[in-house]
Amino acid sequence: MSVDPRLKKIYPEFAKLEIDGLLVSSEANISYLSGMRSRDAYLIISKNKTIYITDSRYTEEARKILKNCTVRQIESSVFKTIAAVCKELKFNRFGFEERQLPYAEYDLIRQETGYILELIPTHGLVEGLRIIKNADEIDKIKRATAIAVNAFKFIKEYLRVGIKEAEIAAELERFIRYNGAYSSSFDIIVASGPNSCYPHHATGARKLREGDPVLIDLGVDYQGYKSDLTRTFFLGKINVSCKRIYNIVLEAQNRAIKAIKPGVEIRQIDAAARQFIAKKGYDRAFSHSTGHGIGIEVHEAPQISGRDSTKLKPGMVFTVEPAVYLTGKFGIRIEDMCLVTEKGAVILSGTLNK
Amino acid sequence: MSVDPRLKKIYPEFAKLEIDGLLVSSEANISYLSGMRSRDAYLIISKNKTIYITDSRYTEEARKILKNCTVRQIESSVFKTIAAVCKELKFNRFGFEERQLPYAEYDLIRQETGYILELIPTHGLVEGLRIIKNADEIDKIKRATAIAVNAFKFIKEYLRVGIKEAEIAAELERFIRYNGAYSSSFDIIVASGPNSCYPHHATGARKLREGDPVLIDLGVDYQGYKSDLTRTFFLGKINVSCKRIYNIVLEAQNRAIKAIKPGVEIRQIDAAARQFIAKKGYDRAFSHSTGHGIGIEVHEAPQISGRDSTKLKPGMVFTVEPAVYLTGKFGIRIEDMCLVTEKGAVILSGTLNK
Repeated sequence: MSVDPRLKKIYPEFAKLEIDGLLVSSEANISYLSGMRSRDAYLIISKNKTIYITDSRYTEEARKILKNCTVRQIESSVFKTIAAVCKELKFNRFGFEERQLPYAEYDLIRQETGYILELIPTHGLVEGLRIIKNADEIDKIKRATAIAVNAFKFIKEYLRVGIKEAEIAAELERFIRYNGAYSSSFDIIVASGPNSCYPHHATGARKLREGDPVLIDLGVDYQGYKSDLTRTFFLGKINVSCKRIYNIVLEAQNRAIKAIKPGVEIRQIDAAARQFIAKKGYDRAFSHSTGHGIGIEVHEAPQISGRDSTKLKPGMVFTVEPAVYLTGKFGIRIEDMCLVTEKGAVILSGTLNK
Repeated sequence: MSVDPRLKKIYPEFAKLEIDGLLVSSEANISYLSGMRSRDAYLIISKNKTIYITDSRYTEEARKILKNCTVRQIESSVFKTIAAVCKELKFNRFGFEERQLPYAEYDLIRQETGYILELIPTHGLVEGLRIIKNADEIDKIKRATAIAVNAFKFIKEYLRVGIKEAEIAAELERFIRYNGAYSSSFDIIVASGPNSCYPHHATGARKLREGDPVLIDLGVDYQGYKSDLTRTFFLGKINVSCKRIYNIVLEAQNRAIKAIKPGVEIRQIDAAARQFIAKKGYDRAFSHSTGHGIGIEVHEAPQISGRDSTKLKPGMVFTVEPAVYLTGKFGIRIEDMCLVTEKGAVILSGTLNK
């Protein structure tokens, strides 16, 4: 288990919060720290020991893969097992991830630890590590992006009048797996014609028609790391109003990407896209934030919103995806993935336009 | 919105718990009650009013689809919106789903409602309705099952030496979408050779070899309802020990299915499979419960475990999936879906063996 070097950065937070241990219940955080795709698992971190708790379906595999931590099989209940570990390690104040622990589990741990152990809500401890990607992570994200880029190039040639949205998703799902992806990283969105005006349309049985905009939002999972790209294609001749909106969205995206460099506040990236769209009169039609961090999760920190004054740092990876949705008519979204470097943004999905 | 008739069954629970309203935060429960595939939404139920709370990405679509409830767009924060609704409806005691509300959200709602509103933990209120499927739900589950059955028939002919596990998953993902599925209902498991000894193997790049067992676990989502089936195939000649274990698992499954009828305790179904496997000396190699309820979620109530003394009722739908996993060697699992009727089990996936 390769947790040690990264965990060192968490211990100062332990000191600040005066906690002896932390219960990690977020699957993404457990996967990040253990290096093993984890389901139905909990991780307990302390300065001396890391304990991976899971049930009988996974213990065999976990023991094989995880090196520097103890794998503990759940006995009668996971909460009794957690309580037993807390007792063995003589914890007094035990941190938990308040955003990823259901109220009922919090309450059961309280009961099982006899209400003596102080449970301390925490958030963002592991996420704080995840926000800056290391070389290995960037490599995996690049691979995930490359597979999605190739899938877009493949599907662009495939689009034609009469095929269904669901069939396009079917071909994409097949393509990405033949090209090394584990799976898509979220339900592939294929939104054709008026369906494109819904940002999260559920891909359906609608058949493509001449002149349709076809919005495709696709991401893949490569060794646990995700990509997320959107393109809006047109079937046949683009009508004038689609073309006009397309160019507005594209220019908004260009402006946001150009604004990316270390030290810039995140809200400035959002503003660069949003102000241009507003100037053209479509600010009410751009109903979501400009982007989101991406890594082990499709949506993770930082969110590229107008409210975040965090400064960009090298190693951050996020999407830039301005859009304009015209209710009942059509929607255009263009989404790329950017890596912040000392010199500015590297567009990881840049080869898609070549 | 077709919530009214089903919600009537919840109101007696409101009375018992002395709550005026319930915050539904489980996506599956919201989808069930609203009839709309829901993400990033909350539902507030009271005797007079049902309110669907979501953000700007979904409000347009929600207003179009949902008839008998108010759609409310999140303003500055979802918790402020929830607090505002509680105030408007003059709630005194407000129930929440303790297993599906993170501690942090519970705490924010407490803060936003000024610590005056009593927050009452509840569980299983909506799940209690979901356990018995109505005719429409059974129809959708049957359709989801039929698509999976056809996918198994298709893939059986496709298996051959040299193809990768991931390629088999690719073909299945494509097939189900061409045949009406929205998506797979969980990561398709293709576990070949020794990989089959891990109950939840992550499908990978291993190529099939002569003599391999090939365990395939596949489910699909059809209009929000799920299926979940497993078959273990063999490439070429089955070796004697595989064949022996296969027959033990098959007989265990037969015994469990035969035991299904209204009034029987759930643990008796588990026992019917487990005791036969134990008699053959493999009880330690059958490391999970015999099955699980299925509907809007792949895993929902009832769990078919040795600890549940609930009595079976007509309209319940669950999997029966005994297995034997021999560490380092191979695993065999056979999983079908059963509907409880007055006359006993109907095997929804029964046509797979014809």
